[in-house]
Amino acid sequence: MPFEELLKHVKELAKMVDDYMLSNLRGDAKELYEASQHLIKAGGKRLRPFLILNSYNIFRDDIERVLPIAAAVEIFHTFTLIHDDIMDQDETRRGRPTVHVLWGVPFAILAGDLLHAKVYEFMAKSDIKAENKIRIIKEMAEAAAIICEGQAMDMEFEKRMDVSVEEYMDMIRRKTAYLFRCSSRFGAIAADAGESLIDALTTYGEKIGIAFQMIDDILGLFGEEKETGKPVGSDVRESKKTYPILYAIQNASKEKKDKLLEILAKQNKTEEEIREAIEIIKENGGGEATRELARKYANEAIKSIEILPDGTAKNYLIRLAEFVIERSY
Amino acid sequence: MPFEELLKHVKELAKMVDDYMLSNLRGDAKELYEASQHLIKAGGKRLRPFLILNSYNIFRDDIERVLPIAAAVEIFHTFTLIHDDIMDQDETRRGRPTVHVLWGVPFAILAGDLLHAKVYEFMAKSDIKAENKIRIIKEMAEAAAIICEGQAMDMEFEKRMDVSVEEYMDMIRRKTAYLFRCSSRFGAIAADAGESLIDALTTYGEKIGIAFQMIDDILGLFGEEKETGKPVGSDVRESKKTYPILYAIQNASKEKKDKLLEILAKQNKTEEEIREAIEIIKENGGGEATRELARKYANEAIKSIEILPDGTAKNYLIRLAEFVIERSY
Repeated sequence: MPFEELLKHVKELAKMVDDYMLSNLRGDAKELYEASQHLIKAGGKRLRPFLILNSYNIFRDDIERVLPIAAAVEIFHTFTLIHDDIMDQDETRRGRPTVHVLWGVPFAILAGDLLHAKVYEFMAKSDIKAENKIRIIKEMAEAAAIICEGQAMDMEFEKRMDVSVEEYMDMIRRKTAYLFRCSSRFGAIAADAGESLIDALTTYGEKIGIAFQMIDDILGLFGEEKETGKPVGSDVRESKKTYPILYAIQNASKEKKDKLLEILAKQNKTEEEIREAIEIIKENGGGEATRELARKYANEAIKSIEILPDGTAKNYLIRLAEFVIERSY
Repeated sequence: MPFEELLKHVKELAKMVDDYMLSNLRGDAKELYEASQHLIKAGGKRLRPFLILNSYNIFRDDIERVLPIAAAVEIFHTFTLIHDDIMDQDETRRGRPTVHVLWGVPFAILAGDLLHAKVYEFMAKSDIKAENKIRIIKEMAEAAAIICEGQAMDMEFEKRMDVSVEEYMDMIRRKTAYLFRCSSRFGAIAADAGESLIDALTTYGEKIGIAFQMIDDILGLFGEEKETGKPVGSDVRESKKTYPILYAIQNASKEKKDKLLEILAKQNKTEEEIREAIEIIKENGGGEATRELARKYANEAIKSIEILPDGTAKNYLIRLAEFVIERSY
């Protein structure tokens, strides 16, 4: 299956999800709904709703029943982006000004809160067995707490220079991989699949989530702004402790390592310093090492779904794991 | 029934709710949980969880089944306080520094988000019929959106000088009364009560919620800081359009009205100006008019529950409607 076939299918499902999201994000206080729709309208790959719909599709055909759950997970993701951008003081996302830049911090907090509430409203509206619905809602809320913990760790790491690879892995497992994990898991729960199949899709989701974040770390350092939608070097500017950065700290010569740490420790970094830091990370193999580890996780993801019935839906998952590694946006 | 008896019972139930909340607000990222518990530990009347437990108690005795729902509504309330304090730049709440003053804005946003997620986790854990549980979760999420809309209106009104009483009523119905409405309603839904009884308790909750907010408006202007836990005159400082302020604008002489509007329109108000504005509101009867209207709503609340079976639980509701008007904190 060529990537184009996967991406075409992702887009078809995204269209359904977008229609559901936008037609259900309406109410009084018009400007508030506009602010909450801003990032959704700015695009995005919609990989999380794809995972839900495709996982469900392995077992059942009537995917319209879980459309509200797919939309719910995507608006949960959007809510975290709006709030994270405030916390990180990021001004650009998906190539557009962030919500707090356009509407101010108070309104952006509220737009995020509104989306967060809609997550559970959408889920409660889905047309699946009551017990599965309650299980998904409970797990989503537990996941939300874990994702908040991940964001707290990410912020705390900005202030520390001694973050270990284990701590980094723990952080991205919560902050990013957990929602991927939930997505492929929820599709299976909603379809009333057996526990061993639910578990297989849970492992798959977590593994590609980790791989996804590691590639994001690479794109955040070496990617093109017009492709990533974010300013180059923002992870360095914010002193994030991403895998390529940690790898360079561990593997650079003492002189280069000290220079990198010195730049990372600065409150205000010049463009020149950011370029220098990126150069040190690059020449010490931070990019390659990250890609290699991400590929390992993607391969494990593919292995974890061997027990699933063969078919198109399974093939999509295999190709998705490969796409996550190859993507440039 | 003397007020003391009502307040003693409210306290007994509050103890159960607090124990549930605090023992279920634990996890990794310790400081995040500390920040999220801060306002809960600072006290509060716990009227909303009381309403849930007492409404349930009208129909059934096993209130431990709905304890998670009572705790959920209280942490929803706490989450909105944390975020509202950021938006309004309030520095004191319940006599203590607000969460963002102690931990910074990013962490306070996150602490609120964590509590918001816990709302649905708690609800999903309650031990009631699946269909009632889903109904409550769906209504809670819909309520959350309405409450966000109310907060957006409240903020928008700060910038406007032509807010009408109708707009004010619509705003407090959303921002404050809606959660009271949900609380007494959820108790009845959880107890599997008939629709007409659910409706009666819904009306009761909304009416006392409106009365509660109007008395809050009075306390915010004329109350003692050591009783209210908030700095005197903060509503004037933030140019809020509360009922006593709107009443004074409508009823003062042209000269006094212009003075009041002039002060409210200022970005930075001196202590002297705030005192002057409060004086104008007082001498034009803003306090009395507000109290009178609040009393009308409290009486309507009492009338709306006439159809409920007589008994202690109903008596508590009658006394609570009276307490909401008489309270000084």
